[in-house]
Amino acid sequence: MGRIICCGLGPGDPDLMSVRADRTVRAAKHVAFFRKKGQLGQARRIVDGLLAADVSEYPMEYPVTTEIAFDSAEYTQLLASFYDEWAERLARLARAIDLVVLCEGDPYFYGSFMHLHARLQGRVALEVIAGIPGMAGCWNAVGQPIALGDDVTTVLMGTLPEAELAQRMRNSDALVVMKTGRNLEKIRRALASAGRLNDAWLVERGTMPDQRVSRLVDIHDAECAYFAIVLVHGQGLRREAAE
Amino acid sequence: MGRIICCGLGPGDPDLMSVRADRTVRAAKHVAFFRKKGQLGQARRIVDGLLAADVSEYPMEYPVTTEIAFDSAEYTQLLASFYDEWAERLARLARAIDLVVLCEGDPYFYGSFMHLHARLQGRVALEVIAGIPGMAGCWNAVGQPIALGDDVTTVLMGTLPEAELAQRMRNSDALVVMKTGRNLEKIRRALASAGRLNDAWLVERGTMPDQRVSRLVDIHDAECAYFAIVLVHGQGLRREAAE
Repeated sequence: MGRIICCGLGPGDPDLMSVRADRTVRAAKHVAFFRKKGQLGQARRIVDGLLAADVSEYPMEYPVTTEIAFDSAEYTQLLASFYDEWAERLARLARAIDLVVLCEGDPYFYGSFMHLHARLQGRVALEVIAGIPGMAGCWNAVGQPIALGDDVTTVLMGTLPEAELAQRMRNSDALVVMKTGRNLEKIRRALASAGRLNDAWLVERGTMPDQRVSRLVDIHDAECAYFAIVLVHGQGLRREAAE
Repeated sequence: MGRIICCGLGPGDPDLMSVRADRTVRAAKHVAFFRKKGQLGQARRIVDGLLAADVSEYPMEYPVTTEIAFDSAEYTQLLASFYDEWAERLARLARAIDLVVLCEGDPYFYGSFMHLHARLQGRVALEVIAGIPGMAGCWNAVGQPIALGDDVTTVLMGTLPEAELAQRMRNSDALVVMKTGRNLEKIRRALASAGRLNDAWLVERGTMPDQRVSRLVDIHDAECAYFAIVLVHGQGLRREAAE
């Protein structure tokens, strides 16, 4: 019986993978990873210089990218079948071999592998290796503490409704907004309405060679890469203690 | 001119340090680290098997631990002088040598080194190496996704007033509560009032050899280790999109 090892790869720079992840990737004989059709895939790109020459690769290609509306029932159904099929294939493969699944960031933190993790529970030996979350790579790229002292930190998805985004942005010290992409304009409006736009940063491809760090007010595009992250730093204020 | 390299060590297991941090620690000739008086210090403990035999060590011992109330003006003043003095000493040392400062977790995320980072800005060449935050080590210890889909994740300090804790706990999907320690009883009451107590986990010494993962309802102590973390997992529900 083999195992499925979900290997968190961190934010992008291979030097920021954990010692355990680095060792696991270099020793892997079989690797699986998600990617969009026609692309190498971000997880696969991170380990490009590390894989053994004779490794077997199992690209798990998303069935749709932008052809169908992201929030439609059809899209949800397509994705569910895709995850079902790959859970089945990985479970079958893992009867004979150890399979390393390459995952950006930290797998347990909004990671796509969790859709397989849930389906594989109890069927196969599963191991998860923690990684530096993508957002941590992004706030390290800015070079200021994201949160300090009694700061409240809120992690929001750009997919949330604008009014909810604005209300939560107003109500938190440090902010991280993930899943930006086509939601960038909405995120910008919500930040402005919360009075936080002037303090916001957009970090694209954090820790990667073509990293870009900008003040969000200086970026006028309506969209950005889906995995770019918007940050607002906390000020580290002390709250009154209740005791 | 030397540099000060603030090295994030991750949650505790040295195997979860980044490749860069591991290389930096092994090559270090001079290391500084915070610790409480009379203790080895958590950061120093993580690298115990990695340091060179002839390394010079600079323990930065907190001037007080529990003798003075944590939120008193006297405590704040004592700590400020302590950080001032060490910033001065590190800046002086870094004129001649490279100095590696050992920091648990990710330095930019509620890290104590940030008190020195602010004081050292512009005075010395500073480098920060990202690490896996302590909270990520803790949610990996539980073995379930902390957040998925459109979940809102909120990171709270246990030092916040009880009513604010309860309100924010009610209002978030995934929850992380840091700085637990003497605030554990208050955190438990706030979770109960928010209807989240039955879903809460207490993770002590996450990823370390003596790690303990418990449902918070099963723990009846009024206090726990200061760096233990309380977690409530998000359910990964899809919110309605605004578009």
